[in-house]
Amino acid sequence: MALIVQKYGGTSVGDIDRIKNVAQRIKKSRDEGHSLVVVVSARSGVTNELIAKAKAITDRPDTREMDMLLAIGEQETIALTAMALHAIGIPAVSYTGAQAGIVTDQVFTKAKIKQIAPKGIMADLKAGKVCIVAGFQGINEHGQITTLGRGGSDLTAIALAAACKADKCEIYTDVDGVYTTDPRIVKEAKKIQEISYDEMLELASLGSKVMQSRSVEFAKKYGVVFEVRSSFNHNPGTIVKEEVASMEKVVVRGVAVDKDQAKVVITGLPDKPSAAATIFTALAEATINVDMIVQNAAHTGVADITFTVQRDEAQNAVRVLPAVLKKLGGGEIKAFDNIAKLSVVGVGMRTHAGVAATLFTALGEKGINLQLISTSEIKITVAVDRAKADEAVRAAHAAFGLEK
Amino acid sequence: MALIVQKYGGTSVGDIDRIKNVAQRIKKSRDEGHSLVVVVSARSGVTNELIAKAKAITDRPDTREMDMLLAIGEQETIALTAMALHAIGIPAVSYTGAQAGIVTDQVFTKAKIKQIAPKGIMADLKAGKVCIVAGFQGINEHGQITTLGRGGSDLTAIALAAACKADKCEIYTDVDGVYTTDPRIVKEAKKIQEISYDEMLELASLGSKVMQSRSVEFAKKYGVVFEVRSSFNHNPGTIVKEEVASMEKVVVRGVAVDKDQAKVVITGLPDKPSAAATIFTALAEATINVDMIVQNAAHTGVADITFTVQRDEAQNAVRVLPAVLKKLGGGEIKAFDNIAKLSVVGVGMRTHAGVAATLFTALGEKGINLQLISTSEIKITVAVDRAKADEAVRAAHAAFGLEK
Repeated sequence: MALIVQKYGGTSVGDIDRIKNVAQRIKKSRDEGHSLVVVVSARSGVTNELIAKAKAITDRPDTREMDMLLAIGEQETIALTAMALHAIGIPAVSYTGAQAGIVTDQVFTKAKIKQIAPKGIMADLKAGKVCIVAGFQGINEHGQITTLGRGGSDLTAIALAAACKADKCEIYTDVDGVYTTDPRIVKEAKKIQEISYDEMLELASLGSKVMQSRSVEFAKKYGVVFEVRSSFNHNPGTIVKEEVASMEKVVVRGVAVDKDQAKVVITGLPDKPSAAATIFTALAEATINVDMIVQNAAHTGVADITFTVQRDEAQNAVRVLPAVLKKLGGGEIKAFDNIAKLSVVGVGMRTHAGVAATLFTALGEKGINLQLISTSEIKITVAVDRAKADEAVRAAHAAFGLEK
Repeated sequence: MALIVQKYGGTSVGDIDRIKNVAQRIKKSRDEGHSLVVVVSARSGVTNELIAKAKAITDRPDTREMDMLLAIGEQETIALTAMALHAIGIPAVSYTGAQAGIVTDQVFTKAKIKQIAPKGIMADLKAGKVCIVAGFQGINEHGQITTLGRGGSDLTAIALAAACKADKCEIYTDVDGVYTTDPRIVKEAKKIQEISYDEMLELASLGSKVMQSRSVEFAKKYGVVFEVRSSFNHNPGTIVKEEVASMEKVVVRGVAVDKDQAKVVITGLPDKPSAAATIFTALAEATINVDMIVQNAAHTGVADITFTVQRDEAQNAVRVLPAVLKKLGGGEIKAFDNIAKLSVVGVGMRTHAGVAATLFTALGEKGINLQLISTSEIKITVAVDRAKADEAVRAAHAAFGLEK
């Protein structure tokens, strides 16, 4: 007799048959006695079709109108899902983001949720109805439709779970849960039963495609326990929740890899205190997201700075930097776009010594050169040659015994 | 420097290029110094696609969810039209029916407009923006999306013109205006420059495809002058307005024909006072729309009743009636689905004698048999054999000199 928020992504509602399948899953949960709020995304592909139409009209569509346009993707799904539930005898009612009371700020195409007033939803739940809510969208204080940007439907589900004080939030997707690493690289990869918000956050930001980090952050902030699981089978998934003591027994939770990285090396930079600030301010102004940064002042008077960026941003960085270096009085730029970033993540690291040593040894034994190293309390990240990335992941996975 | 409400139908915004064409037309009006509110329909075909998706899920989609689904058709068009205006430098902002303040009753799929509070629109107009409004849709007092049913976008335009006290309302469609008769039947048919609401109403209800009668009724009630014209050229169209004295000089304004009619004949009905009431109550309960009705009590004690219905409803009538006749104590049913209905319309008829005589003579000379006759103050309608319909239209058109 719990209140459950379920979220089904674009693949799970990709066509009429899949929507009917989702309706059956909802029925099953309801037959077990639960009250249900269900968040759905646009059918996979629909958002891209809408973007293509806008682009056919103008290169730079107005963001307000873009949100007006994109919001129809989810509106289609909620209506069809409600109909599919009616067809199997389940009372259901659809809600746009605005009707669900999801109020956002004014930033079109990447709005932040400010508050949720789910009055209508609570009344319909009480009347025994399943509430189907459009993910990804809200309304600002001027009554204009906004969208939440990438990962927005997950955010809708988790925020609604917080607002409705749901007992549980289930994020249905096309994977079975969170794995110790990518099963396509390491066939022994295992599904993780439970993971802390912090670990999930690190995995999300390190290239795991399961979920955007903003939704995990929101869940952490409001203490929403959620489960990532598949809509195509009934296997239990991965539960994401606050860290508990027992989690520290597992030193490393998983190995993440992001193969779409590039490295930019600046050598011979005059060693002034302001040099790094000048460079990274210029990159930020060009909206280039820098990830790992390493600085050495090996020789007197000159410094080397190396940083990584997403592969498709490397050329932008190379375009922006020469003017900056000229102002600073020197320096040379080289970009390498054959970089992969490998990370081991686990809250247990905090209380276990030697994790870095274990990782470096495992990679060293395979002759894999570490181009950059960066550490935090619960993760160690290294940049390696992309050609060696899979081998590195397998070595790390084995070194920490994650297959067990 | 007028305030103009323009409405573009589904064909006029049928694809990206046509939306761009509409944007150019809007720009032209704006360059002439006018303030503009523009109502658009869903792209032609979109509404049918959405209905097909709903039907693929369930035979009888819930009407609330149907409206939730159908409303996205216009929402797509408003966003794309606003973008197309931005692309040519015109400030524009889109409005869903709800955002435009179009409040309707609770009847999903065929809601009636209760009031319009165009506060946001008036503010945006004042700021020099073009307001693009989704036709066909509104919101009820519970914040649920409703749609207005057939001809709904025309109604949105005319109701908005009334609410905003617009100087003019232009209904853009794929025809040039209202003609004296169907130009495909009579090549001498002429475009009518001005027509009264009453004449337009009769033509609308008599098979002219230009406009639904509910929009004309609304315009008449609120005195909204509107022009029906083509979005594919710049020819002046037909202006629809209150009757003026000069209109009576033209005896007959036009000839309408509806070839999709059927005739149902009931013979040998016991001649009781309640018989007709019983029959037509039963038909109404089966939601069968009856048009012309003629009753004869030629023989003592028995009566004949003949009525016309839309062709696709004839079989429904034949299914419903036997039980009724049994209750009444007798009668036989015959249905003929080869009927056409021809009408001549004009406010001038009121003050001119002999219109019926002229029509009957013209048809008689061609050997066309009149199966049913029905008259009102400004129209005469006759039912004829469908095979003779075109010939009858040509004869009537010529008899009243409409080609001049």
